[in-house]
Amino acid sequence: MANVRPTGLAVMCMVTDGKGNILVQDRSDPHWPGITLPGGHVEEREAFVDAIKREVWEETGLSILNPIICGLQQFHIEDGSRYVVIYFRADQWEGELRSSDEGRAMWVPREGLLKRRCVKHFADMLEIFENDTLCELYESPDGNRLL
Amino acid sequence: MANVRPTGLAVMCMVTDGKGNILVQDRSDPHWPGITLPGGHVEEREAFVDAIKREVWEETGLSILNPIICGLQQFHIEDGSRYVVIYFRADQWEGELRSSDEGRAMWVPREGLLKRRCVKHFADMLEIFENDTLCELYESPDGNRLL
Repeated sequence: MANVRPTGLAVMCMVTDGKGNILVQDRSDPHWPGITLPGGHVEEREAFVDAIKREVWEETGLSILNPIICGLQQFHIEDGSRYVVIYFRADQWEGELRSSDEGRAMWVPREGLLKRRCVKHFADMLEIFENDTLCELYESPDGNRLL
Repeated sequence: MANVRPTGLAVMCMVTDGKGNILVQDRSDPHWPGITLPGGHVEEREAFVDAIKREVWEETGLSILNPIICGLQQFHIEDGSRYVVIYFRADQWEGELRSSDEGRAMWVPREGLLKRRCVKHFADMLEIFENDTLCELYESPDGNRLL
């Protein structure tokens, strides 16, 4: 098929509790440290919705219900491959919070979140998650575009 | 980077006029005939939002404003590659309607749309575009999943 190219696919979710808090992971990976939202790679032949439910569960112990797509992010790496992250939001879940080897899982107030040590581009990522009129974060060496 | 696999990326948009009509293309391609929504491949390094604006313009002559992501579709082809279509909605546009070599562009009433000759899986596609609680059409040889 035409236009098939090397692509990495991932998912990420903003889980909110309706009381001003967001579910985050404080990543322990020294190559990508800081606070971010739960998420990760989509497996071969896995549905995106299944992937985001699996990733949030693996990283936080919570089983999200009814995730809704709200945006995406793309960037390109040096070998020319494209990387696409599908963004979801969820405000319903079941289960008990726990952390994983990847980092500490916790609820944090949205207010002041960006004053903590967050991953690169986190402010732009939050803008795509939270602004209903924006749906794409396009990263390039010349800077980020929010579309 | 891990998990990079051969993937085709495309975009599709449901443009509505607020009066019960939807912008469609009646495809002339004998390999994929019938009514569908405008859309097509994402070019190398192209932003998804730029891609959907370009495709709708190329196929219908209309320049959509403020497209919003509303879902996605995936299927796998025989060689193992994955194909992902990002769905958008838009209800604002500029320009004059015209057709392209790919097919006739026209506004049609939503009511009764599925009684026309539509592309395969079109009813399931519309369900993802229109149902706010669903965000993925996963096609498999065992049948479609709507998630």
